[in-house]
Amino acid sequence: MTSTSTAARRGPAAPTDGARSALHPLGHAAVTLDGGFLADWQLRNREGTIPHAIEQLEASHALDNLRRITGEHEGEFVGFWFADSDVYKTLEAIGWEAGRCGAEQFLPFVDATVDLLARAQDDDGYLNSYFQVDQPERELTELRWSHELYCLGHLLQAGVAWSRAVGRTDLLAIGLRFAELIERRFGEGGSDMVDGHPEIETALVEVFRETGDERWLRLARRFVDLRGRGLLGVDALGPQYYQDHEPVRAVREATGHAVRQLYLAAGVADVVAETGDAELAEALDRLWSSVHERKQYVSGGLGSRHRDEAFGDAYELPPDRAYAETCAAIANLHWNWRMLLLTGGSRYADEMERGLYNAIAVSTSTDGCAFTYANPLHLRSDASGGGENAPTTRQPWFRCACCPPNLARLVASLHDYVATTSADGLQLHLYADATIALPGGGTATVRTGYPWDGRVEVAFDEPFEGELLLRRPGWARGAILTADGRSVPTEARDGYLVVDGSAHPLSRVVLDLPMEPEVLRPHPRIDAVRGCVAVARGPVLYAIEQADLPEGVLSDDVVVPEAPEVRPAGVDPVTGPRLLIAGARVRGGHRHELYRAMPSARTDAGHAPSSSAFGLIAVPYHRWGNRAPGGMRVWLPTR
Amino acid sequence: MTSTSTAARRGPAAPTDGARSALHPLGHAAVTLDGGFLADWQLRNREGTIPHAIEQLEASHALDNLRRITGEHEGEFVGFWFADSDVYKTLEAIGWEAGRCGAEQFLPFVDATVDLLARAQDDDGYLNSYFQVDQPERELTELRWSHELYCLGHLLQAGVAWSRAVGRTDLLAIGLRFAELIERRFGEGGSDMVDGHPEIETALVEVFRETGDERWLRLARRFVDLRGRGLLGVDALGPQYYQDHEPVRAVREATGHAVRQLYLAAGVADVVAETGDAELAEALDRLWSSVHERKQYVSGGLGSRHRDEAFGDAYELPPDRAYAETCAAIANLHWNWRMLLLTGGSRYADEMERGLYNAIAVSTSTDGCAFTYANPLHLRSDASGGGENAPTTRQPWFRCACCPPNLARLVASLHDYVATTSADGLQLHLYADATIALPGGGTATVRTGYPWDGRVEVAFDEPFEGELLLRRPGWARGAILTADGRSVPTEARDGYLVVDGSAHPLSRVVLDLPMEPEVLRPHPRIDAVRGCVAVARGPVLYAIEQADLPEGVLSDDVVVPEAPEVRPAGVDPVTGPRLLIAGARVRGGHRHELYRAMPSARTDAGHAPSSSAFGLIAVPYHRWGNRAPGGMRVWLPTR
Repeated sequence: MTSTSTAARRGPAAPTDGARSALHPLGHAAVTLDGGFLADWQLRNREGTIPHAIEQLEASHALDNLRRITGEHEGEFVGFWFADSDVYKTLEAIGWEAGRCGAEQFLPFVDATVDLLARAQDDDGYLNSYFQVDQPERELTELRWSHELYCLGHLLQAGVAWSRAVGRTDLLAIGLRFAELIERRFGEGGSDMVDGHPEIETALVEVFRETGDERWLRLARRFVDLRGRGLLGVDALGPQYYQDHEPVRAVREATGHAVRQLYLAAGVADVVAETGDAELAEALDRLWSSVHERKQYVSGGLGSRHRDEAFGDAYELPPDRAYAETCAAIANLHWNWRMLLLTGGSRYADEMERGLYNAIAVSTSTDGCAFTYANPLHLRSDASGGGENAPTTRQPWFRCACCPPNLARLVASLHDYVATTSADGLQLHLYADATIALPGGGTATVRTGYPWDGRVEVAFDEPFEGELLLRRPGWARGAILTADGRSVPTEARDGYLVVDGSAHPLSRVVLDLPMEPEVLRPHPRIDAVRGCVAVARGPVLYAIEQADLPEGVLSDDVVVPEAPEVRPAGVDPVTGPRLLIAGARVRGGHRHELYRAMPSARTDAGHAPSSSAFGLIAVPYHRWGNRAPGGMRVWLPTR
Repeated sequence: MTSTSTAARRGPAAPTDGARSALHPLGHAAVTLDGGFLADWQLRNREGTIPHAIEQLEASHALDNLRRITGEHEGEFVGFWFADSDVYKTLEAIGWEAGRCGAEQFLPFVDATVDLLARAQDDDGYLNSYFQVDQPERELTELRWSHELYCLGHLLQAGVAWSRAVGRTDLLAIGLRFAELIERRFGEGGSDMVDGHPEIETALVEVFRETGDERWLRLARRFVDLRGRGLLGVDALGPQYYQDHEPVRAVREATGHAVRQLYLAAGVADVVAETGDAELAEALDRLWSSVHERKQYVSGGLGSRHRDEAFGDAYELPPDRAYAETCAAIANLHWNWRMLLLTGGSRYADEMERGLYNAIAVSTSTDGCAFTYANPLHLRSDASGGGENAPTTRQPWFRCACCPPNLARLVASLHDYVATTSADGLQLHLYADATIALPGGGTATVRTGYPWDGRVEVAFDEPFEGELLLRRPGWARGAILTADGRSVPTEARDGYLVVDGSAHPLSRVVLDLPMEPEVLRPHPRIDAVRGCVAVARGPVLYAIEQADLPEGVLSDDVVVPEAPEVRPAGVDPVTGPRLLIAGARVRGGHRHELYRAMPSARTDAGHAPSSSAFGLIAVPYHRWGNRAPGGMRVWLPTR
């Protein structure tokens, strides 16, 4: 492998030329976010989250764990036995960052860490700071819980990021030495086994894409096909926790540990892209429907159960006890990106957007240095939190620190998800101020106030003769589209508005998406939010927060009309654009009895709201919890 | 200790003569249940549950674990390290049964097991089948998780039961030898430590009551006062899991593992009764309000969270994800019985009744040989269950088998909770066909069809000159009371209707409680059941079940009117008396989208019920799941 030219730099999940792929990524260096929401996030990631993560890798002893292998550090292993993955994900983040706009300030950390990993690696390629020191006799024998291939997966993804982004291959070489060992041990002809935590599958397909060596694709497919055969044995968590309950090809419902389910889905989508396996593709379609039509929060959060960090049953979506792990929302974005590339369907980009502006964005504080792990949609006034992964406020780090560096690697590659190309032209999926280098030469410039404003202007420096596809978001109630002053019909094709530049080459295309506040109502089978409404504007979900309520009014007791008037209410310096919900009242008639009986056929008049109506402020859900502590609600009772 | 005369036989939680106690138990042999609901349950327990439990103690290797100590069995320890307690609770059940109506058929098991325990016990009194064989070096050093004092508590309760019920003291002697060791190690002047799972506290007070030795009361109080001081150290579960988060005297809210919280509460109530400690009594009052006014299911189930088997926040009461462990409802009955004795307040008996006919009764199948551990109030049609303690059907036993033998010991002593005495006379708390031997001589006979019929007739064989108190249940909307043909005023005193026999000695008292079906509405802060109603009749909560629905109609899609007409609908041989809810409809307008947006100030007309109205059958909640599998709901949506 040699240094990569700028044009050839690729981003995450870049299918090969031979892949089944309706759309193609533009390349990691082809898109620059110039300003606005996503660019600000990348800046916050670079200046806040990544330096903070590097500090925390020391403070949490994740680096010391590795230094124990070389003898540079003495002491106990600290943290969970998969703590190496925190280091790898941080390295991946910096890799994408290096390809985006350089990472000089992080190179001392990167060089020292890559050097440490090279020295820590065993001669046979094995590398894992827990097992090498504490339980060498159990290496690669306890894959149900060991996370050894999970950690390798993250090491490989970090190596691929550096190789793709700037052509630096030393980290990938370390990963490949370990992967060779795994291939000898568990490849065709070797032991039939899988890892209890999927991740290696998507990583191996990426390694195949980066190296061209089909062994890695075969190994990924083998790991996919070996699941659901009971190879991991049985324990109290049940086989679905480990995604070992049924063969992937037979899947009907998303179940078990949500992050494992969704990492696996991303890996399967990669295998489908590179093999064209139709049966696996159909399994993915069923899984997608299960997740997105029956088990997803309106925020894009996934995995409702705290217990086992798992998907619940269909429609089991409590807002207060939403686990909705940050990593699950990130994994879902990864999966939907792969589905989007495969098929070109806008629903996948819609779900990327939903997660990005809500379940993922909410996970980071405004300074980029405090995080959530669980992401509830409702916090009661007296909430006590739900264990170490579900405190009531954002935390600087976690003992299980999977989420913060996962955010860092996602945000450093956000621009990769904005647009794609195909033989027919250019597709815009996420709207943001961006400069896009087109594959055929020339530049497209996007200017927009998205997600706060629905106007999107696309300017081409050279007249564009292809098809320009503009995603019409699922939430959009209409659209006005003009191309160089001409009105363009807005019938969507597979969710995209089409502007054809073949007759009249395009110079300036303007899309106007209406952004009036919307009132959202849940599917009637979602029992936990019956009789409630939520408020959104564009892709941004809103919430009410104690900090905005009149003195003496608790967020627990607010009631809104069934069809409230909602209008913009200015911009708060911390939370951004606010909305005002008219006609809210405070529920009165408090009583001690939890349950009140009355004779059959008589209604209960005791709950009538007692206050006069007032205007209720709502703020973007993703910005809640950055001011005073207190209750929060996305779903607002109407009774 | 000598053989106990019939008159002196006492039941569970019998305060001493010096105790602070408004009411006094009548004695284990003073009350006989003659027929009806509770007597049937005792019969089912004797003929079904207890023989089944003895079989399961073999099948689950709980007895083999003990035989490993003596060398009679070889092999690994099986089950959880507190499996000895399953044996002790079964022995306790048989002890109460022996005092109730003999236990000849169980004596071979009892004799062999007591003999085994005597031989297994170490010379210093220590007895625990896990630690003695597998980790002797850690004996009594790991009380956070070891359950050693928890198991001892159950051993002592079993010993007390046998001693009280029939004067057999060999089992208690074994427990006392172990208790002496604990007193030397952890009593005054010894180590400051508590057990991670409360249980020893209530057991020690009972031992004090049985032996008269105040050391045991002092040790119980010491264990109560040492909680909340951080003695158990810190782990990921948090100190509230172990009831070590704050001193008992400072308690404000029920929190942490529900069974631990409630066993502790029972023990504290015992300490209060025997010491008169006013500060502890006030703490108990606060705890009681937290549990019963903010954290209890309408079924009497407690502890909503699956994760850590814990109490949720106030009003966090999801019916689908209700953990509501059977043992928590049993512990709550134990606690409320102690509060009732302390204070004489009917609200405690009301809660005993609520749990008994609902959360506790639901846990056992109609044959007495299959059980629930978690007790949800809602099961979706496609529910997959929630781990090994929360399958979708009752199970013969559990790997963690705390619940079935806990049921057995409760049911064998059910008659002890029916009535009490005081200097003023007799109090009836639970209505059942019963013959009651009165302390002053003579007999009261109760005849009733309760809980299905509200008429309760009390006949005295000798004219009764004291006060007869009849509980007026919290659910009762009125009452008609006559004494020997005279109408008696029905103003309740502390929840009890008073019939004074001093002027006109009583021969026959008749109470009529109206039992029309009631529609229950939840407190508006209980988010999870907003817009729903439940149906009850008398103390019995009802549920709808898939087995009673028209073909093609799922329990997930049924909607009832806000104020439905409900009327009796005959008796089913399996479920008992049914109700019919008029005007139910099937929700139509199915759609794929989980969330539907509409412009502010427009309502959603898409959820309107589409079917014609039909009569919806409801069955007693405690009998659901005894026919075909399928969905179940207590809370019925009105929209």
